[in-house]
Order: sequence, then C-alpha cells, then structure tokens
Amino acid sequence: MNIALMLSYDGTDFSGWQVQRNGRTVQGEIERALSEAFSLSVRVTGSGRTDAGVHAAGQICNFPFEDTIRIAPEKIADALNVFLPPNVRALKSAAVPEPFDACRSAKKKTYRYAVYFSRREHPLLERYAARFAYGADFSEMRRCARILEGEHDFSAFSAAGSSAKTTVRTVYSATVEEEERFGVPCARIDVCGNGFLYNMVRIMAGAILGFGAGRLSEEEVRAALQTGNRELLGKTMPANGLTLLSVDYGFPLFKEGDQTSK
Amino acid sequence: MNIALMLSYDGTDFSGWQVQRNGRTVQGEIERALSEAFSLSVRVTGSGRTDAGVHAAGQICNFPFEDTIRIAPEKIADALNVFLPPNVRALKSAAVPEPFDACRSAKKKTYRYAVYFSRREHPLLERYAARFAYGADFSEMRRCARILEGEHDFSAFSAAGSSAKTTVRTVYSATVEEEERFGVPCARIDVCGNGFLYNMVRIMAGAILGFGAGRLSEEEVRAALQTGNRELLGKTMPANGLTLLSVDYGFPLFKEGDQTSK
Repeated sequence: MNIALMLSYDGTDFSGWQVQRNGRTVQGEIERALSEAFSLSVRVTGSGRTDAGVHAAGQICNFPFEDTIRIAPEKIADALNVFLPPNVRALKSAAVPEPFDACRSAKKKTYRYAVYFSRREHPLLERYAARFAYGADFSEMRRCARILEGEHDFSAFSAAGSSAKTTVRTVYSATVEEEERFGVPCARIDVCGNGFLYNMVRIMAGAILGFGAGRLSEEEVRAALQTGNRELLGKTMPANGLTLLSVDYGFPLFKEGDQTSK
Repeated sequence: MNIALMLSYDGTDFSGWQVQRNGRTVQGEIERALSEAFSLSVRVTGSGRTDAGVHAAGQICNFPFEDTIRIAPEKIADALNVFLPPNVRALKSAAVPEPFDACRSAKKKTYRYAVYFSRREHPLLERYAARFAYGADFSEMRRCARILEGEHDFSAFSAAGSSAKTTVRTVYSATVEEEERFGVPCARIDVCGNGFLYNMVRIMAGAILGFGAGRLSEEEVRAALQTGNRELLGKTMPANGLTLLSVDYGFPLFKEGDQTSK
C-alpha cells in the first residue's frame, strides 16, 4: 500500500527536511515515528526538501506501508502524531495509487514568504516572518511580482551550486497581500509555480521587497531574468519567513474532512 | 527621571511577568538588562502581571532612571535590547511625568485571545493560539461577547484565590473577528476593559467559545454574571492563546515614530 501524508512543521528547530548525519530533520522524525508506531523501516519521499528553518503548512510525503498492518489509512496520521514531537504534525493521511510519488508526481507548489516592516525586532512576529527594516510600497511590490510571473529562466534567482538540469520554471502566480499584526505592517508574498530552484522563493522575496523599497529597478529585474546574473538582485531573504503552503498533484489526495468535530 | 518602556514578549518560555524565586520571568530579564546596560539596580513596575505562557505585544512598565546617565530616553530601548534575550524586546522608551506608575495609572487594557478550530494540532498555530476541537458559530460567539460588555460583577469569571477588593469591572468592548490561517479557521477575541480579575479573559474566552459551540446558553451566562457562580461556565482556556495587546493611560506615552527607516 502506498500512503501519502500531509504534514505541518515549525522549521525553527530542524536542520531541514532531509535526513542527514548530524542534526534533527523532519524526514528523520517521520521515519522514526513510523518505526516506533508500526515497526516499519522505510524511506519517506517528500515533495521536496525544505531548508533548515523553513516551515511547512502542507508538505506532502509518501511511503510504502505493509498491507498486513490493520489500520484504516486515514488513521495513520493520528498514530504517527503519538510518536512525533509537537513541532511536526501529520494533518491527514490516505492510501494513494501505487505510482504516486510525492516528489515526481508534484504539479505545482505554493510557498509563502512572510515579512514584517520594522526597525526593531518583534518577538511575536519573528518566528514565522522575516524583518525588513525599510518601508516598501505595496503597489511597487505587486508590479515586481507581476514581472516575475510566467515562464522564465530563473537562474539569477538561484543560489550558486544548484544542480538543476534546467533553470526554466513557470511561476503561475506571485501575489502580495498586506496585513497588520499587532499594529505592525506585514506582507505575505505567495508564489505558485511548477517547481523552484534552490533558494528561488527567498531570492524572489528579496527582489520584490527591494523593488518596493526603491532599491531595485524594473530594468534590473528584467536584466536579471534575461542574463541570469545573480549579482543584479538583492540578498537572499532568511529561512524563517518561508513556509511551504501546499503541493498540488492535479487530483485530491485526501478526502475533505471537517477540521473540527461536533 | 521616570522612564516608561513598551515591551513585547513571547511568553512560551517564561514563568510569567513577575520576578519569583525559581524560573525565568520578564520582569527579571528587564531588571537584569538595566543592571548590565546601566549598572542600575532598580525595581521595574509592570502594568500588571501576565501569567506563565501569556504573551505581550504592548506591555508597559516604568522604573526610576539616574539623571546622571547621559542617554536620550528614546534610546534606552535600543540599549536594553542588546542585553535582552530574543524572546523579549523593548519596542519604545520615553521619559514620563514623575507621578506616572505603569500599574496604578492604567486606565484601560486590551487583551486578545486567539483560537484555532481543529481536531488536530497545527505546529504553526499552536504557539500563539489555543486549539478548540469543536465548531463554533461566529454570530453566537458575538452574541455572548455583547452580553459580557458593560459593568458587571465578574466574580464568576475569576479563578479561585483572587484577592481583588472588588469584583466589579467594566468591559468597554468584547469583539470576535474571524480569520483563516493556513486554511484553518481562527478567531480573535479582543477584550478591552478598565481592569481584569485573575484569569478573567481566559474564562471569558472559554464562555464565548462554549456559547458558540452550543454548550452554554444565554441563561447560563446571565446567571453567572448575576450569581457569581464559576461552575456555570466552562473551562479556563490555556495561557498560550492570550496576548496583552495594549495599555491605555489616557495620554500618549511615546512619540509616534515610524516603524521602519528610509
């Protein structure tokens, strides 16, 4: 049986998704919980790696499950939560078709980059949003986001050392929403695409903010897309502002259940 | 010189505001930072205690400051932040009139109780909001909030062992706002009053939620206000959902400065 899980995690205390020699990882915690709950020693496939400090509200993974273990697939989430630490939770579980692979079957991913605008740190915002110490114009930020939408060679928006075969990606949408939290102005930059290069969303967020602050021009953004020159863009924004919101496979993996019970 | 500070803190890892023999407290951190930054050994007066696990976005405190220390009052916040841990931050500082006392001068306080509605825990919501596993009707929650507004004897809304002289308080407003975070329905219950009994906001939040879930009736809420019978109401909601938003002294303590620099 092929089981898919929807996971949420607070990335603050994790060395990212992928199992590694040193450091606590989300994949490592899921594999440990599967071993403790079901004596199952399997490799879990994630929709993609998330870096150290990056959060997820709807990460998807899958793994082979023994047909001999008698548990309803949708109850696997609850069983794993018993063995998971509070900063990772399985939100949903389901049996999926055999060929489903959380990484290779992914059609679209949506990330959120959250920012708050302040000269001083705010302890209640800092954990899930990055601080930007300059003012930024929202209509300018939206204008930059629109330039980035579409199919482009995003090599300028990728960290050095990326080993992707092609650097062409399609950004289906990049939106900038304004909100206020505890009296502090905040922005949510949501980016949906068919795939992302290493650090791509964090570099996009930096460019959108730099554009809004008047430190990056339309010419520079267009030149970065055309030439692939990473130097034209601003800094890579920090991991704490980034959250993987959802992964779309072109069909629903889970039955829609109520979030609450009566 | 009398100095007022505006503070924000993440209460998760604190044993509350007030200095105590065991455990790390916010007051203790501020007093330690004053000692390290200015060799000043003073007692800091908060607008009120916050319990273990309760957060603040705009806690106010004041303390006597040596006139011989040459620093602009509005820079004291920055100096303290150098010595404070990341989960507490001084957001603003100012010189205030001599008779100002952060506790006794307070006219109104506003608290927020944040809740998310879900059968399962969400790691990205759990830190600053309490989970409510049942559905709740927002118009019913608002109806309960309106019943609680006004001057009442709130003794039913107070934890046992409270030593307040009078249990009559005025709730100027109690509002319930709906929002969605990461696809999960959430509520923000904001309560503004001239003062609050021990655990009052957490018991009010529990009553509003219980009312919205159909587990508490209008008759029971009115009877609780009239009889002072704590048993009529539901459970005290947990500390992690509660945040002290602001304290109003009837005059502005701080010059309005921009949150960001150009």
